[in-house]
Amino acid sequence: MIRFGIIGAGRIAKVHARSTSQHPHAQLVAISDPVEEAREALAQEYGVKAVAEAADIFNDPEIDAVIVCSPTPLHIEHIVAGVKAGKAVLCEKPIAMEVEAAEGIRAQLDGEDARVMLGFNRRFDPNFAKVHTVAQAGELGPVEQVTIISRDPAAPSKDYIKVSGGIFKDMTIHDFDMARFFLGDIATVSATGQNLEEDLKDTGDFDAAVIVLTSKDGKVATIINNRHCATGYDQRLEVSGPDGAAFAENVRPTTVRVSKREHSDALDPYLDFFLERYEAAYYNELDAFIEAVNGQRDFTPGIEDGIVALKIAQAADESARSGKVVEL
Amino acid sequence: MIRFGIIGAGRIAKVHARSTSQHPHAQLVAISDPVEEAREALAQEYGVKAVAEAADIFNDPEIDAVIVCSPTPLHIEHIVAGVKAGKAVLCEKPIAMEVEAAEGIRAQLDGEDARVMLGFNRRFDPNFAKVHTVAQAGELGPVEQVTIISRDPAAPSKDYIKVSGGIFKDMTIHDFDMARFFLGDIATVSATGQNLEEDLKDTGDFDAAVIVLTSKDGKVATIINNRHCATGYDQRLEVSGPDGAAFAENVRPTTVRVSKREHSDALDPYLDFFLERYEAAYYNELDAFIEAVNGQRDFTPGIEDGIVALKIAQAADESARSGKVVEL
Amino acid sequence: MIRFGIIGAGRIAKVHARSTSQHPHAQLVAISDPVEEAREALAQEYGVKAVAEAADIFNDPEIDAVIVCSPTPLHIEHIVAGVKAGKAVLCEKPIAMEVEAAEGIRAQLDGEDARVMLGFNRRFDPNFAKVHTVAQAGELGPVEQVTIISRDPAAPSKDYIKVSGGIFKDMTIHDFDMARFFLGDIATVSATGQNLEEDLKDTGDFDAAVIVLTSKDGKVATIINNRHCATGYDQRLEVSGPDGAAFAENVRPTTVRVSKREHSDALDPYLDFFLERYEAAYYNELDAFIEAVNGQRDFTPGIEDGIVALKIAQAADESARSGKVVEL
Amino acid sequence: MIRFGIIGAGRIAKVHARSTSQHPHAQLVAISDPVEEAREALAQEYGVKAVAEAADIFNDPEIDAVIVCSPTPLHIEHIVAGVKAGKAVLCEKPIAMEVEAAEGIRAQLDGEDARVMLGFNRRFDPNFAKVHTVAQAGELGPVEQVTIISRDPAAPSKDYIKVSGGIFKDMTIHDFDMARFFLGDIATVSATGQNLEEDLKDTGDFDAAVIVLTSKDGKVATIINNRHCATGYDQRLEVSGPDGAAFAENVRPTTVRVSKREHSDALDPYLDFFLERYEAAYYNELDAFIEAVNGQRDFTPGIEDGIVALKIAQAADESARSGKVVEL
Repeated sequence: MIRFGIIGAGRIAKVHARSTSQHPHAQLVAISDPVEEAREALAQEYGVKAVAEAADIFNDPEIDAVIVCSPTPLHIEHIVAGVKAGKAVLCEKPIAMEVEAAEGIRAQLDGEDARVMLGFNRRFDPNFAKVHTVAQAGELGPVEQVTIISRDPAAPSKDYIKVSGGIFKDMTIHDFDMARFFLGDIATVSATGQNLEEDLKDTGDFDAAVIVLTSKDGKVATIINNRHCATGYDQRLEVSGPDGAAFAENVRPTTVRVSKREHSDALDPYLDFFLERYEAAYYNELDAFIEAVNGQRDFTPGIEDGIVALKIAQAADESARSGKVVEL
Repeated sequence: MIRFGIIGAGRIAKVHARSTSQHPHAQLVAISDPVEEAREALAQEYGVKAVAEAADIFNDPEIDAVIVCSPTPLHIEHIVAGVKAGKAVLCEKPIAMEVEAAEGIRAQLDGEDARVMLGFNRRFDPNFAKVHTVAQAGELGPVEQVTIISRDPAAPSKDYIKVSGGIFKDMTIHDFDMARFFLGDIATVSATGQNLEEDLKDTGDFDAAVIVLTSKDGKVATIINNRHCATGYDQRLEVSGPDGAAFAENVRPTTVRVSKREHSDALDPYLDFFLERYEAAYYNELDAFIEAVNGQRDFTPGIEDGIVALKIAQAADESARSGKVVEL
Repeated sequence: MIRFGIIGAGRIAKVHARSTSQHPHAQLVAISDPVEEAREALAQEYGVKAVAEAADIFNDPEIDAVIVCSPTPLHIEHIVAGVKAGKAVLCEKPIAMEVEAAEGIRAQLDGEDARVMLGFNRRFDPNFAKVHTVAQAGELGPVEQVTIISRDPAAPSKDYIKVSGGIFKDMTIHDFDMARFFLGDIATVSATGQNLEEDLKDTGDFDAAVIVLTSKDGKVATIINNRHCATGYDQRLEVSGPDGAAFAENVRPTTVRVSKREHSDALDPYLDFFLERYEAAYYNELDAFIEAVNGQRDFTPGIEDGIVALKIAQAADESARSGKVVEL
Repeated sequence: MIRFGIIGAGRIAKVHARSTSQHPHAQLVAISDPVEEAREALAQEYGVKAVAEAADIFNDPEIDAVIVCSPTPLHIEHIVAGVKAGKAVLCEKPIAMEVEAAEGIRAQLDGEDARVMLGFNRRFDPNFAKVHTVAQAGELGPVEQVTIISRDPAAPSKDYIKVSGGIFKDMTIHDFDMARFFLGDIATVSATGQNLEEDLKDTGDFDAAVIVLTSKDGKVATIINNRHCATGYDQRLEVSGPDGAAFAENVRPTTVRVSKREHSDALDPYLDFFLERYEAAYYNELDAFIEAVNGQRDFTPGIEDGIVALKIAQAADESARSGKVVEL
């Protein structure tokens, strides 16, 4: 049984609290958050300790592993503190707001036994994972083209967008990791940004984008993003090679099709939002983390995957603003 | 080049006029119909002769083959006249209104070289034909269960229903032939009739039905019929065996799926009605008939298939009214 | 929090042990089974008491509700004992092996406050439940035809079949309940049995069947059963009315489609078997039961639903053997 | 009745010969091709005149309209000759190999009544046309993102590739026109080329590519191309706006789905190749052209559409080689 502490009591912390409470080999012990109301509510729901300071989690000898769900600017600090306290660490994405800050972690962890996994949960989604398995098994031949369509149901608040680090670091970063999952090392980034929502224009951020990545060996991944989608959380993936293609379709709450006078076989809207769509992915991610803690697998995706995804995000922003392909 | 005459200028005659005009080895020569307006209109559309009497078709030395599209009570007479005139005959279903009348054709054609094919066009539908091919190839193992769903978009007029011979002889007869196409000889018939449309009740006919057929070797076919279907002409088939199943889905005018807030991936309504849905089937049926005329295949389905389908229809009516399984 | 005891430690008991352990308002307290190894293994997995006698469950004052997962011949006895001990009871299907035995429960529970729900879990499957919601909302117009396709992945052992009560009471009983869920009172039953598997023939039972039910107001339900299906657990439902139709499709482990040279868009096989396919249904059933215990809904489906389903099963057997429609 | 001459007797000429022979208001009169064998074979199949010189078509007073299916370098010459001879002209894509040559046509046709339509047949595909209708009707809200996936079943010969003008002018040009069909004027082009097939590398051409186009009002079209696709001719399109999305799926020869042990609902491979996939599109294109000849619609897409598509193709090539966004 691995005993967990969670740093943070926000939206994503709730996901992890649920997963840890459901996993047969996980036990949630404590939750920290500076906001009293938030930490108390969540701690009470799961019958665990609530503490104000992250340090109280790191110093708790009853805790084996921590899940870092704090605001992004605190991720590096919390990963380092966790490692130095001897905890295994599962940290949410992105690893940091800036590449420089992210790379600074290398020196801070120098000489440590850093048991750190990054929360790129989509690698653990059963649908995407099956596409990966099919591709890895060689059923499609060598992967040639990857297409990722990733649209949120609705844009977050302007306040959030302003502190989000921008669409590439906040939203596309998952897709960058998926591209690396299928293509390996990325060589070039070419991005095109869009401003579709009138009232988001003054954030200075894009609210939709298309990004084309090439791998070192000439494969291509195309990512199509949008901050809104009428039908829900649009999360699709297709991977093709000379021998075939595999598609991960959207997930719906039921398999029901309805036919009427005006149309046939209409399905439900897509699951909306990530808590529902990626519930299994978060659970499987926790499962993989626990296996890593138990020495049954590596802590992967890890810190370097987080740094590389952030570098691609930064390159995408540069490309979208300069109109030039950026080499990594 | 096979030169055709068509007996009749109604709805189904138009289908065959179109097919013969499109087929590279068919040439439409003349159309007969007692109704002047009808025969003239159709003949003019295809630039062919219009004659009042069917006899003028049979006696025309320039005609090699006739397609019988006259009212059902005249089918036997027209088949016999065609054969005796040395023509190859393609006759629409059903072969007759009553089994006794149908069986009378055997004596009338005794000693003749009866080159006659019955218009069970669904055997030639590319979708159903592919299911048949898959099944015949043994991909599913020995066929065990066949399910046919066959719903018309809307009931015909009461006047038509009264002279139609009833739902089993008029509508289900196609499905009976399909059941035989997959299962071979039918041993028992069990039918359940429904009266769903209030204003059709006084016709004395059912307007929906479920019929269960068993074959001599213990296979089962289930037919689900309805005189109406909101989404169009609902024509599906599934065949299963111990090693798999094959499904022929409905046909739509396009492949387009539309997603909105309330639903995802809504397709077009089904093609409506048989002229559209079975256009390819009618063409392929003509093609098979021409091959038979050219000695490249048998004239099948033939007269005996028409008689058997009619017997099953009669048994279905008897079963639906008596509540008993009828043995053939 | 409702405290549960489970009678039995077999396959279906494991499903309910899992559901009760996951539900936030359920607490599993004890499991009884005469087989020591079975009860100890299951009790240990969930950290609860293991007892040999069902009576120890009924007499336990710490238990609020019992789930009866004993062999069918004991169901009536265990329901009655549970009710008399003041427990709420959730009993697995079928309620008994014979209608007479089942009806005997009425006298035994006379004067008792019988808080009993029958385990027709499919009513709680999200897919079938959505079809029901769509139909109840009137989106399809008055329901006219229901088609249920229900095929198990593989036949159980001959030993099990011999004590199962036969295909209609063991397997189709779920489908009979679904038919009633959509159509209400059933008036007639017409069944056709098949013997497809050579080595099951000497069990005297059918291993496949088609059953046609009519409701008192002229609706029809068609049920197509088979003890085996190559692609997994084939569980589909379609409901149609004059304004449309709703289809519950099979459930697959992922949404992934694979295209190759020989085919396109191949999906995973169906989820196999009922533990996986109906996991959500069992959970939702438990949730409904807990709501009933808390006075928020009725205990439905209840004892009378169990008796009626059994009557239909008996009528189906009679019809399949006599070749006659059986009126209820 | 419009009387047609066809310039050329190659692969695409055969498509148009078939369409003109099937259309009720078209009559094929003559075919010209310098290769005797080719022109005789095709002319004989349709029972029309065969001539060696294109001039014999232009000078034929019995011909109302010509379809230009000559090699691309001759397109401009043949369009001009046709117009000057008073014929209506339907010319295959691309209009020319080089933008400069294409633009030269303006001076040559100055003062002429140029009744010229360009063969961007995909606008007339029933699937893409329906998506366009849905989008134009405002059902999706203002179009935001268009995604076109266009993969050929197999690369043409190296000899053809060398004279093809390159992937962007030869293959993607159709997709550029589709992007314009949905987005209107294109402002920028950003292309990424791939070399996937070893033995095509020395052609100097790409054999796969991703191209991102932005419109003047900030919409984006993404085109994903590949010279090969294992499952057939992969031709898909999706268009999304704030209120929904529409998808044109691939076309298969039948609707049959096959389920076995290892997978469920496998469909046929995609129709292969453009003669089959776009048969209806070519026919509808001809129909539109005939309507234009009859004054019932404009000759659109026209010469300027051909020039713009070529400009985009040239810009794509420049972008793929320079790594920069190219403004039009």
